[in-house]
Amino acid sequence: MPLDHDVIGVESEPYERSWTSKDTLLYAVGVGAGLGDPLRELPFTTENSAGVRQRVLPTFAVLAAQAPLGRRFGDFDPAMLVHAEQSFELHRELPPEGTVRTTSKVTGIYDKGSGALVVTEAAAVDAATGDPMITSRSSVFIRGEGGWGGDRGPRTTWEEPDRAPDHKLTYETRPEQALIYRLSGDRNPLHSDPAFAARAGFDRPILHGLCTYGVTGRALLHALTDGDPSRFRSMSGRFTTPVFPGESLTINIWVDDRTARFQTLKPDGRPAISHGVATFI
Amino acid sequence: MPLDHDVIGVESEPYERSWTSKDTLLYAVGVGAGLGDPLRELPFTTENSAGVRQRVLPTFAVLAAQAPLGRRFGDFDPAMLVHAEQSFELHRELPPEGTVRTTSKVTGIYDKGSGALVVTEAAAVDAATGDPMITSRSSVFIRGEGGWGGDRGPRTTWEEPDRAPDHKLTYETRPEQALIYRLSGDRNPLHSDPAFAARAGFDRPILHGLCTYGVTGRALLHALTDGDPSRFRSMSGRFTTPVFPGESLTINIWVDDRTARFQTLKPDGRPAISHGVATFI
Repeated sequence: MPLDHDVIGVESEPYERSWTSKDTLLYAVGVGAGLGDPLRELPFTTENSAGVRQRVLPTFAVLAAQAPLGRRFGDFDPAMLVHAEQSFELHRELPPEGTVRTTSKVTGIYDKGSGALVVTEAAAVDAATGDPMITSRSSVFIRGEGGWGGDRGPRTTWEEPDRAPDHKLTYETRPEQALIYRLSGDRNPLHSDPAFAARAGFDRPILHGLCTYGVTGRALLHALTDGDPSRFRSMSGRFTTPVFPGESLTINIWVDDRTARFQTLKPDGRPAISHGVATFI
Repeated sequence: MPLDHDVIGVESEPYERSWTSKDTLLYAVGVGAGLGDPLRELPFTTENSAGVRQRVLPTFAVLAAQAPLGRRFGDFDPAMLVHAEQSFELHRELPPEGTVRTTSKVTGIYDKGSGALVVTEAAAVDAATGDPMITSRSSVFIRGEGGWGGDRGPRTTWEEPDRAPDHKLTYETRPEQALIYRLSGDRNPLHSDPAFAARAGFDRPILHGLCTYGVTGRALLHALTDGDPSRFRSMSGRFTTPVFPGESLTINIWVDDRTARFQTLKPDGRPAISHGVATFI
């Protein structure tokens, strides 16, 4: 059991992160805003269109609330780690430029047999006012680090509704999508270098999971809130199958009152993101 | 004759401009590097691919050498101004990150009858060493400011060769191309805001001339120097017909020794850039 369970609950020092209008515009085009129809998402892709106020895609929250953990939770081969789940909650609409102070902690380490699932949570407050802005929760799966007979963790209660989706949107990605998305900060060569991708077992570089997540977030935003980020509250999902840049993504959405379940499907029908839940007002 | 001819030859104070690796990567995707085939131009789109050194597209020189003029050359409606011609010469390969000091001056004001052609030149030196890096020359046409009976300026001697092009390359642009390109600095809403574009007489926003120029520069780089920016010396061309984002560009290139003439054609065959000349070693 080389993972350190003593880190659970230990809160990091606050970490300050700022972003500019340009950062949020770059993020928007990175997750495909305006793709194919540059006039469609101008509030997210431009800051100076007449009569259009710049807004921020809700999924930018995940980047804004990224912060280092106070303590490492173990020594392991980073190549064994995959991003498993991502959720966030917005306590207010994200401003086009802003500064947050974020504290983070590990909230659980679970034994999944073939590996360990490590869950971390980050709480970001507006640096100017101290008001809560984002709560972000992330799970990583670490292959080979399970099997110590520990708690398997909470089981999901997510079930696919027994009816056709209420919304079904297909969004494109570009073959060059990862080259744009990576400029928002995640330069992992798994997403751009074919030699690196080959060593990880892929024919070619794969799309960032958080890019797929951002594309999915755009679909949810438009389907659920008519493109109004102030009505978007939360989103969670599980990364299930890797996506290659250029693949289209079909987002199936089932709405019950102010909660939506969703799945993001690859062209072959396999889920890229499963167990999706989003809330809105 | 409201343009001020006394500005000719008056050199500006040096203007310092720095760029980062991220700036040059963003420029590269802005002019379509990697478009459709993300593995093809990795030296320009990534900084961390195994065995690949980051290089800079030669046309980034135009942005790097941008600097304010020391003195305004007249009072006129900025809506009457169009970018007419652009040339640059590289004295050394551009580094992925760097700092230049640039002086600029107006070198000529010519009477074209329906308007004035104002030619400016900028000389950028490496801020660290003082060595020349870029000479950039730009012409703007100002409608309504001609007709004072002045010098018409030098006549072009460019002629289309009487043979089929030696290279003919078709490069795509994306409908969302201007939304990416604009993040390299030129936020003129003519390229993104449909209301603004309509006032300028266009059905929809047009692509930045310098984006078309950058796409053309990629074609020249690959056709003439096998993608090696250290062999690229100079490029000049005249902006002839506006391009809409999403239009493909066909670059016809005729090579005579170390000089190439080129034209960049729109899908309907009209020239987007005419009178093109590039040199290489």
